[in-house]
Amino acid sequence: MRDTDVTRGGPASQQGMRRANLALVLGHVAREPRSRAELAAATGLTRAAVSSLAEELLNTGLLTESGPAAPSGKVGRPGTALALDPQGPGGIGAEVGVDHLAACVVDLRGEVRSWHRMEIRNRGRLPAAVLADLAELVRRAAGEAALHPAGLALAVPGLVGAAEGVVERASNLGWEGVPAAAELRSSLRATGAHELSALAIDVDNDANLGGLAELWLGGRAEDFLHVSAEAGIGAAVVVGGRLLRGARGYAGELGHVPVRPDGPPCSCGARGCLEQYAGERAVLRAAGLAGAPGDWVALLAGRAVAGDEKVRAALAGAGQMLAVAVAGAVNLLDPAEVVLGGGYAELAPWLLPAMRAELAARVAVRPWSQEWLTASRFGRRGPLLGAAVGVVRAVLADPGRYAQARD
Amino acid sequence: MRDTDVTRGGPASQQGMRRANLALVLGHVAREPRSRAELAAATGLTRAAVSSLAEELLNTGLLTESGPAAPSGKVGRPGTALALDPQGPGGIGAEVGVDHLAACVVDLRGEVRSWHRMEIRNRGRLPAAVLADLAELVRRAAGEAALHPAGLALAVPGLVGAAEGVVERASNLGWEGVPAAAELRSSLRATGAHELSALAIDVDNDANLGGLAELWLGGRAEDFLHVSAEAGIGAAVVVGGRLLRGARGYAGELGHVPVRPDGPPCSCGARGCLEQYAGERAVLRAAGLAGAPGDWVALLAGRAVAGDEKVRAALAGAGQMLAVAVAGAVNLLDPAEVVLGGGYAELAPWLLPAMRAELAARVAVRPWSQEWLTASRFGRRGPLLGAAVGVVRAVLADPGRYAQARD
Repeated sequence: MRDTDVTRGGPASQQGMRRANLALVLGHVAREPRSRAELAAATGLTRAAVSSLAEELLNTGLLTESGPAAPSGKVGRPGTALALDPQGPGGIGAEVGVDHLAACVVDLRGEVRSWHRMEIRNRGRLPAAVLADLAELVRRAAGEAALHPAGLALAVPGLVGAAEGVVERASNLGWEGVPAAAELRSSLRATGAHELSALAIDVDNDANLGGLAELWLGGRAEDFLHVSAEAGIGAAVVVGGRLLRGARGYAGELGHVPVRPDGPPCSCGARGCLEQYAGERAVLRAAGLAGAPGDWVALLAGRAVAGDEKVRAALAGAGQMLAVAVAGAVNLLDPAEVVLGGGYAELAPWLLPAMRAELAARVAVRPWSQEWLTASRFGRRGPLLGAAVGVVRAVLADPGRYAQARD
Repeated sequence: MRDTDVTRGGPASQQGMRRANLALVLGHVAREPRSRAELAAATGLTRAAVSSLAEELLNTGLLTESGPAAPSGKVGRPGTALALDPQGPGGIGAEVGVDHLAACVVDLRGEVRSWHRMEIRNRGRLPAAVLADLAELVRRAAGEAALHPAGLALAVPGLVGAAEGVVERASNLGWEGVPAAAELRSSLRATGAHELSALAIDVDNDANLGGLAELWLGGRAEDFLHVSAEAGIGAAVVVGGRLLRGARGYAGELGHVPVRPDGPPCSCGARGCLEQYAGERAVLRAAGLAGAPGDWVALLAGRAVAGDEKVRAALAGAGQMLAVAVAGAVNLLDPAEVVLGGGYAELAPWLLPAMRAELAARVAVRPWSQEWLTASRFGRRGPLLGAAVGVVRAVLADPGRYAQARD
C-alpha cells in the first residue's frame, strides 16, 4: 500500500538504475500514452534505452501498443503509442464494513472492472465467518474481472497496529487482535482460489484508504484533511502528498476528539467524544430514528430529501459538532482543504451549511474560506477504491519488483 | 531556517557532487571529531577526496585540526582529528516577546557564546521602536561572541505568513503586517552594524522555533507535539523529523482549538478557545492574580512552590483544559511524545499531574502511557535557541553555499 519510491536510497547499481528507469518510463506512460520517441525526449534516456525498457514492460504485460502515437506521418512500430495495458495486472480491493462486505478489481489505469457488495450485519459475528464470506466475494470479483491479480488490500473499520495484517481493535465489529490477512488468505485457499490465496495481502484502516483515494483520484491539494463516516468517524491527514499515519499507526481518530469535555460517555471510555454527537447512533437518535435497521446514511438522506425537519435539524446539529472538531484540526494543522467523505459525502447537502457557518465562527485566528470545505465525489466507495488503486500504484511505482514477483 | 538537503534534487553535476560531499564530510565531523582516514572509511570517499574536501572546509573556517584522532601510533597531520571550529561562523538568534527582548549567538557546535535579554513591555509599542531596541541587543550579543555571523533568525509570537520576513499578525503585541526582517535590518544599519545588517534575516513563529530546538537538541523521537506558552499558546507538530508548517504556514494554533464550544469569547473572535482556560490571563485570573505585572510564569511558579493552594488549583485547572486540547491532537495525530515547553516547562510540576490524569481518561481509543508526556529542559529559552541553532544547521547542511556567500 505504501508508495515505493525506487529513486531514493543508497548508491545506484546497474540493476537499481534499470529498475528506476522502468518506473520512470511507466510513470510517463501512465500520465498519457506516448511513443518511444516522446518518451526518450521526456525522460532524457536514449531511444535505444527506451526501446529496451518498453520491450520489458510489454513482455511483463504492463504496456500495450495502441495505434499511431501522433499524426507524424511515420509508419510502423516506432510511431505507435505505448499505453498502460487494460488487460495487464489488476488490483483487488476488499472491505469489511459493519453492515456490508465488498470487493472490487481495478485495472492498471485505475478503472473499475468489477465491483461486488453485499449487505450483511457483521457486528458480533466471528471474524473467520466474516472473512469467509468476504473471500467468496473476492473470488467472484476477481473471476469477473479476469485480470492477473497483482495484490490484495483489505479495508477495515478499525485500528491496524504495528503487526502486519492484524486488526488490533475494531470496536464497531467487536474485533480485538484479529489476524485478518492470514484469515482471509486461508478462506481464499478454502474456496479453492489458490492464485488469490498466494497474493500479498495488505490491511489498512478504511478512513486512511478513503483519504488515499481522495489524494490519488480526487485531484486534491497536497495537504488536506479527509473526514469520513461509516459506523465510526475517521479522518485521514494528508501532509505534503503523504498520509500521516502517526508514530504508532493510530493517527486519524477524529471521532474521539473531545468536543464537550463534560459530554456523555463514549464507547471508547472517554467522555464527550465527537462520535457521541456526529456518529451513526447519535444522529439517528437525534433524528428520532434510534435503532432503525439497514443503511443509516440512505435512510437519513432519503428523509432529508423528503423534507423531514427533524432529520434535517439532526444533520445540522451533527454538522455543527463536526465543525467544532474540524476547527480544532484546522487551527492545529492548517490544511489547504477539508473534504467530507464516506457516508458524510452523501449527507453533505444538510451537513455542509451548518459546518461552514460554524467553521467561519471558529477559525478566526487565521484566514479561512468556506470554499475550502467540500464533499468527496467518491463517498462510501472511497475506501474500497483506495484499497484497489493502492495495489496498482505499487506496481506502477516499481514494475521491476512486480516482474520479479511474477516470475 | 528550513533544512537544506543538498543530496536531493535534479541530476548530479560535478559541482553539485562536490557540494554534497562537503556536506557529507562536515556532517560526519559534526557528530564527532574524526581523522581523515576515519572519514574516508565512514563516507566511502577516497582518502584523496576527503583530504581535498577537508582542506576546503578548513580554509572556509568551518573545521579545525585538534590533536591526535586516536591512539593509532601514527604521527603527523594525517593522524590528527578534524573537528567543528569553535571559532567558525556563528548563528544569531533574536526574539521579540510580549514582555522581553533577547539575542544570542551559538557557535557551529550549537554552544551558546553570548546571551542577552532585557525585560520590556512591547505590547502596543511601535514595531520600529521594538526592533530598534532589539537591534542594539543583537549588536551587543554579536560583539561579545566575536564570531563571523552566518545569518540571523528572529522569533516572534505571531503568525508569519507567506511573505518572507513579514509578521502577518501578532495580536499579543498588537502587530499587523509588520515587515520585521526589513525593519530589523534598517535598525542594524542605523546602529552602524553594517556586517549584521547585510545578513540573511529569517523570521519564524516562536512556538515553531521552540519545537525545532526540542527536535534538534532535545533528543526527542521523530514524531512529537511540542506545546508551549508565552503570552499565547502555540504548538509545533513534528512529523518524521520535520516541522509541519501547514498549507499556508499557519499550523500550530493550539491556543485556538475549541475546548468548550459554548465557552467565553476569545480575542481571536471565536468562543471557548483553549487560550481562555490555559493562557496567561486566564491562569492569572483563576489564581486571583489578574493584572499582576512582570513575569507571570515566575510569579505563578514562586507562589506554587510556596504552597499557595489557589495558584496550585489554577494550574491544575489549566492543565486539565490543556489536556483536553492535547487529547484531541493525540487522537488525531498519534505523536510518539508530547513535550511541554516554553513557560509551561517551568510550571510543569503543577501542570503535569492534572494533564496526565486527564489524558489517561481522554485518550482511550488507543494505547497511551503517561510517560509520553514530559517537560522540555529548554523551557522559555527554546525559541531563541532554535532560532540561532537553525542558522548554523543551515551552514552545516550546505557548507558550499556558505563559502560562496562569504566570498
